[in-house]
Amino acid sequence: MYIILVYDIEEKRVSKMLKLCRRYLHWIQNSVFEGELSPVQLKELIFEAELIMDARKDSLIIFKTRQEKWLEKQVIGKEKNEIDNVL
Amino acid sequence: MYIILVYDIEEKRVSKMLKLCRRYLHWIQNSVFEGELSPVQLKELIFEAELIMDARKDSLIIFKTRQEKWLEKQVIGKEKNEIDNVL
Repeated sequence: MYIILVYDIEEKRVSKMLKLCRRYLHWIQNSVFEGELSPVQLKELIFEAELIMDARKDSLIIFKTRQEKWLEKQVIGKEKNEIDNVL
Repeated sequence: MYIILVYDIEEKRVSKMLKLCRRYLHWIQNSVFEGELSPVQLKELIFEAELIMDARKDSLIIFKTRQEKWLEKQVIGKEKNEIDNVL
């Protein structure tokens, strides 16, 4: 299934979360990721994210769609550049 | 159509953008909004957003799907509370 993930994480935990999300998904904006995951991969990602997060302060929103073609993406303004993606 | 909007905007322009997005969509996380918009409403929103944004620094990602039911949402951790929504 196709996943959009957005996190809102306190500064001190951001780098761990970024690293985790980039193992599973493509980084498309500051705190936004997308990509194709199996249900098992998504479970793993959520499990690992919960170990990093403080559930009282941080949040993670996941949108799932069965087919990528059901979702159209439009970027206005600055596109995430490749240098950022290599960080 | 059903819209997910995520922005990455420099601090000094955030409050204007937040205000604009809240006129059209529901605020669900720090910089994430969702809701049903007509194509005309979406065009208006993008037009107004571009007046606020610095296109070299800021970005706006919009995901569109024809039907809300094609998109499943899961929130992990802190749900955005009502007090935030009233701000």
